[in-house]
Amino acid sequence: MSLIRMADIEALATEMEGMELSTDRALLRQKSRDFYWYSPILKAQLDSKSAELYVRPRNEDEVLRVLGACRALRVPVTVRGGGTGNYGQCVPLEGGVVLDMTAMAAPIALVDGVVEVEAGAKMIDLDLWARERGWELKLWPSTKRTATIGGFVAGGGAGIGGISHGTLRERGNLLGARVATMQDPPAILDVEGDDAAPVNRTYGTTGVLTRLRLPLTPAQDWRDVAISFTEFPAAARFGLALAFADGITKKMCGVFDSQLPPFFRGIADTVPEGHALALVMVTPAAMRALRDLATEHGGTIIAEQSTVEAERDAEKTPFYEYCWNHTTLQVLKRDRGVTYLQCRFPFENTLEAIEAVRIPFRDEVWMHTECVRFGGRTTMSALPVIRWTNAERLAEIMRAFEAEGIGIANPHVMTIEEGSGYRRVPGDQLGFKRRTDPLGLLNPGKMRDFTMADA
Amino acid sequence: MSLIRMADIEALATEMEGMELSTDRALLRQKSRDFYWYSPILKAQLDSKSAELYVRPRNEDEVLRVLGACRALRVPVTVRGGGTGNYGQCVPLEGGVVLDMTAMAAPIALVDGVVEVEAGAKMIDLDLWARERGWELKLWPSTKRTATIGGFVAGGGAGIGGISHGTLRERGNLLGARVATMQDPPAILDVEGDDAAPVNRTYGTTGVLTRLRLPLTPAQDWRDVAISFTEFPAAARFGLALAFADGITKKMCGVFDSQLPPFFRGIADTVPEGHALALVMVTPAAMRALRDLATEHGGTIIAEQSTVEAERDAEKTPFYEYCWNHTTLQVLKRDRGVTYLQCRFPFENTLEAIEAVRIPFRDEVWMHTECVRFGGRTTMSALPVIRWTNAERLAEIMRAFEAEGIGIANPHVMTIEEGSGYRRVPGDQLGFKRRTDPLGLLNPGKMRDFTMADA
Repeated sequence: MSLIRMADIEALATEMEGMELSTDRALLRQKSRDFYWYSPILKAQLDSKSAELYVRPRNEDEVLRVLGACRALRVPVTVRGGGTGNYGQCVPLEGGVVLDMTAMAAPIALVDGVVEVEAGAKMIDLDLWARERGWELKLWPSTKRTATIGGFVAGGGAGIGGISHGTLRERGNLLGARVATMQDPPAILDVEGDDAAPVNRTYGTTGVLTRLRLPLTPAQDWRDVAISFTEFPAAARFGLALAFADGITKKMCGVFDSQLPPFFRGIADTVPEGHALALVMVTPAAMRALRDLATEHGGTIIAEQSTVEAERDAEKTPFYEYCWNHTTLQVLKRDRGVTYLQCRFPFENTLEAIEAVRIPFRDEVWMHTECVRFGGRTTMSALPVIRWTNAERLAEIMRAFEAEGIGIANPHVMTIEEGSGYRRVPGDQLGFKRRTDPLGLLNPGKMRDFTMADA
Repeated sequence: MSLIRMADIEALATEMEGMELSTDRALLRQKSRDFYWYSPILKAQLDSKSAELYVRPRNEDEVLRVLGACRALRVPVTVRGGGTGNYGQCVPLEGGVVLDMTAMAAPIALVDGVVEVEAGAKMIDLDLWARERGWELKLWPSTKRTATIGGFVAGGGAGIGGISHGTLRERGNLLGARVATMQDPPAILDVEGDDAAPVNRTYGTTGVLTRLRLPLTPAQDWRDVAISFTEFPAAARFGLALAFADGITKKMCGVFDSQLPPFFRGIADTVPEGHALALVMVTPAAMRALRDLATEHGGTIIAEQSTVEAERDAEKTPFYEYCWNHTTLQVLKRDRGVTYLQCRFPFENTLEAIEAVRIPFRDEVWMHTECVRFGGRTTMSALPVIRWTNAERLAEIMRAFEAEGIGIANPHVMTIEEGSGYRRVPGDQLGFKRRTDPLGLLNPGKMRDFTMADA
């Protein structure tokens, strides 16, 4: 069922002449999807969705031409980067145009540790480019090798680096952006500092990110280290102690109950059967202290490699590709009967809260925690892998988690408001959208609280 | 009153032939002092103390020769670096030899972000040397321009950098050391990781540090920023918020009640009369977020400079020389009637605890707090400037602080145990000393719990 008239598509194609365009159904279907299928609930809701015209602009002028043409005909526009989201962030609910940003991928400048970059740059490329200049990204997702920086800002914002730098919602982790609006006529806004919050993690509903300014951190020669423990509680205690160890410079610490390491193909054989696992990234200078800490908690270092060497080698797996939501993916590769949750444990009695849900649900919830900072305080978040039964059972599990004081950012819903939970960026996104997208044409249906009457 | 016989001094001088030696009384007096005189209590106790022979070895062999000669004659040895301590750490209580480490000041190696350096290196020189290679010290004291790295490890350990890296007591911030012992015969021990804890902040009582291995952090182009506030509570709220702001890369945040900025010569004129002040160090990339945060708390940026340029210019004052215990020094330069305290506020309700002591004591206690991390948790410590009345009144003030749940590290006592409080390094220092200094000849009187009977 086509949502816009064929005549409109033809008119749009004329307006966009000279750009990379397509109405190929297979391509449209591919470019209308992300990794929402980790959720059986979203899969049922989103599998049939598709845009009707694909466009891949090369510069801001072309973006503005696309938006102007779509505005004139009241055609929705859904922007996408690498398409690595998990909540249908870039799935067009009402058809229309899918705007692929991956041709706008150039780094623009790096001055005083701040990079300005086009939104469609792949994060691995951006990080490599920065690294050649002595810097690296503060934060990246486990999908670094395919995700774009614009997609990470628009629909992600947490991941590797969060143990030291928090998430993108922390003031200072996103410095500014250029954003193309659906105003009349469409325009480029340049937003800076706190004023950039309304384009942060809004799924492209408040404008099309064309450029981003991000603070970098000096490049380090990260070591991937795998540490096994006979029991999960010791691994978790170690992980949290590492997160609190200010003398150990680190970028990541994921902790996995014993059901999960067998799915981590590259290192599964090195993990003793039935053992829990911690995967960490630390600096070379921190290795001795890491060993002392592991010993104190009964851990054994079982594998070590250079993160950067591994991520540049297509044959290798940097350990972060077992972490964050790659954990779920590693299981899904061999078992499609699972899904996952996103949650955050309380800052106090963190380990007790983990055990309070890990033990009773152990048969169907395989615990996987990630150390992270929120608002300057350290805790663990979790992306446990969950044996899928049905939506009611999933809701039951979420309620049980919440009853223990565990925050849920539900990844089985598609609107910003329902899903973001503790990950919501402060700021007046709704007010900003009324200004930049009064007709509600940008990724319609994703900002639940926006209605046309508002505008 | 000489504590060792003249014949022994002559014998020692013979044993140490070829080394830089002196028995000049003025020099001995100078080299037997530190900045203990900030405390009227310690001043009365320590002013008369002096070593009887000064020696300045050039290498480990000479250190071992000094220790061997002293051991044979049962002569105490007190080691010193820059002499910037505040608790008489390097004041010889029982005379003997003062061993000046400042001729052993060479950087040895910098590999994978770990520097090995001779203990007598001045911290400013070490940091400059590291900076030329892309690295910098994680932590330094406000006395960076005169203190040695060995002195900082042996008798300091907190200061600039503590807002991000904690103190030297955090596992990983001191990686290893070479230490000359008073065993028979004296020997060099190489201690690494947790095994180095017994030489960490023990005032040279457990051995003579000859080399240190420290983790560095990638060099940043720090900005000194001064921010004024009409009231202290707003400044303190801002400071604590900055400490918790993971998106803002920072090295320092000191907060000063309105009595103190008039003593800060280089910037006093820029601070509006009666205003409180925050002095911070952030990266250039963090400036925008810092401005947003300052605005949110009603602060005004009144001065800014490059930290590194200021510290290399003898005419200029890097802002860290108004912070930590330099605050007290800045006041003492013009008013000898004050002293100070060291304390740590609780992790919860930090600002309430500060106000609970700031307000009732405001006439005689001028509040000065420093943001710092302990065990991975963020709080404020304080080095308030205190109008000196007498020891009883000071004790009264300390009791009032403790009654509010504020930890005290009393800087008016000379033993490690009495003074270190929350700053005590974990580890079996006493057991280590029994092994490395069984005769109790290293800086006798400073490790209270050590007695000859123990050994």
